[in-house]
Amino acid sequence: MNYKAKERLPAEAYVKGILEGNKVILSKAITLIESNLPQDEDLSLHVLEAILPFSGKSLRIGITGIPGVGKSTFIESLGNIFTAENKKLAVLAIDPSSQKTKGSIMGDKTRMETLAKNTLAYIRPTATGSKLGGVGDKSRETILLCEAAGYEVIIVETVGVGQSEVSVHGMVDFFLLLMIAGAGDELQGIKKGIMEIADAIVITKADGKNINAAKIARSAYENAVHLYPPSESGWACKVMTCSAIENQGLKEVWILIKDYYKFTNENGFYEIKRNQQNIQWMHENIRVRLEGSFYKDLKVKDCLLDFEDQVRQGILSPTIAAKKLWNMYKM
Amino acid sequence: MNYKAKERLPAEAYVKGILEGNKVILSKAITLIESNLPQDEDLSLHVLEAILPFSGKSLRIGITGIPGVGKSTFIESLGNIFTAENKKLAVLAIDPSSQKTKGSIMGDKTRMETLAKNTLAYIRPTATGSKLGGVGDKSRETILLCEAAGYEVIIVETVGVGQSEVSVHGMVDFFLLLMIAGAGDELQGIKKGIMEIADAIVITKADGKNINAAKIARSAYENAVHLYPPSESGWACKVMTCSAIENQGLKEVWILIKDYYKFTNENGFYEIKRNQQNIQWMHENIRVRLEGSFYKDLKVKDCLLDFEDQVRQGILSPTIAAKKLWNMYKM
Repeated sequence: MNYKAKERLPAEAYVKGILEGNKVILSKAITLIESNLPQDEDLSLHVLEAILPFSGKSLRIGITGIPGVGKSTFIESLGNIFTAENKKLAVLAIDPSSQKTKGSIMGDKTRMETLAKNTLAYIRPTATGSKLGGVGDKSRETILLCEAAGYEVIIVETVGVGQSEVSVHGMVDFFLLLMIAGAGDELQGIKKGIMEIADAIVITKADGKNINAAKIARSAYENAVHLYPPSESGWACKVMTCSAIENQGLKEVWILIKDYYKFTNENGFYEIKRNQQNIQWMHENIRVRLEGSFYKDLKVKDCLLDFEDQVRQGILSPTIAAKKLWNMYKM
Repeated sequence: MNYKAKERLPAEAYVKGILEGNKVILSKAITLIESNLPQDEDLSLHVLEAILPFSGKSLRIGITGIPGVGKSTFIESLGNIFTAENKKLAVLAIDPSSQKTKGSIMGDKTRMETLAKNTLAYIRPTATGSKLGGVGDKSRETILLCEAAGYEVIIVETVGVGQSEVSVHGMVDFFLLLMIAGAGDELQGIKKGIMEIADAIVITKADGKNINAAKIARSAYENAVHLYPPSESGWACKVMTCSAIENQGLKEVWILIKDYYKFTNENGFYEIKRNQQNIQWMHENIRVRLEGSFYKDLKVKDCLLDFEDQVRQGILSPTIAAKKLWNMYKM
């Protein structure tokens, strides 16, 4: 990557642009924050520090579900309800594949056409960062930038499968799982444990020939969530059906989210969770730095694959392999 | 702690004793492995390296459930079935509270009286290690030592609640969740997501007045697990009832575990999982070393609580706090 090709603005220009809600500057600031170039780090942190007092005031919603469940259509329909109430909405799509394809902004704009044209809405895929840091490790900072730019609702959408759902759960207030009636093996993509942490399960495509299957699925899930351990929040997972095509059930989802907000605000959990997430985020960031420093070490890099092979073959104990790598790193 | 007070044996003495199945030496070796004294590390690794070729041949079973579910009675009854088949059984109890109480060996022996007297059985609470490393970070090594000592079935029991269940899942072949019919708020202790990763759910105390409630719970859980995403193993979670007092359903659990072993051996998942766990264990061990080095750093220690406070109050961004601590550490 050619650094010179990436012209940066002064920190104040980013901050001013963001606070004015300038989408072009906001996008540039997100690109800056997502940069892994060491020379961008100080500027990033300056911008973050300056906008921090203006952040935190949005409702953060995580939405996940297997491909084919109708995430884009659902988010577009829900988003149109938000913007109809004159709320500014940002949609951040975490796509683990976007690193390969160098982003999918055009794809996102195509798949959420009406939202993309809406001046109250801002759509942006977020970088997955390095593999070490896990998926979406700059998404939290991106949320802050969007909040400072005045977005009142932030939807964080996971496009991929696997670990990303867990990360997203750690950065949002409300976590929504989209399901489809009758999905069998497709569910393989969903990480185990996600169902139990959802604040709501919404069964999509409850229309046409699907209506009955969706209703049956709804009551099956309702029975299932009753068996789950209760949440720290005191909130019990709700199960709903919706049809984005027929515009059914979307308003009810929005009412539910507002109910959750009210409920957790009143019992104090909302703030507790935000605080926990912030502390956790700090420690995660430290872990990413520690592991980055370790796994980028040339001596470690030289031996890692070979050691992993030996561990896999059972001729080297994982503990001893770790100790040997550690000694190399410390040398 | 006085190091001189802890007399160590030469590595060969540990290895010989373990391979001969000497319980006293095995216990001493586990104590050595669990030691956090730097001067014990090399000896530990020598012992581990020497016994490695003799390890790995047991069936590793994780058992968890809330306090009051009847774990000890269940394990004792199941254990008696194993030993009746002339199988050597080790029970490792991970108790996050054992660090405070300096172990609960006597407690364990009291609560599993018949097993404790059985020469084929070995019962041992395992240290939780430092908080940094998470719960039970020496339990994996303890499993290897027990295997080298000839134990063919290893039960890893979590006594506590929270993170420990997830760690245990990562070190066993088969993960069993004990449930009780009609438990409500008690379930709060169960970490969310545990139900979805269980290979079997067994409803205990299905006797006397409880029988009907247990049967109803069984069919409710059966319906619920059908909705879960399918497992990578291809194995679908089974739900059973049992009564340890009336000695009902225990043999069926043992048959189920053997079925699982056969099933995953035939489809190759058994080996895949063991390999994955070993690689993961290596990386976890590295993470523990990295975090240990960081959080024990005096400069970091000096500022950490203050930074956490500022992050909690929202006056310091988690990213910036992490960066500042990182700079101190690197100084």
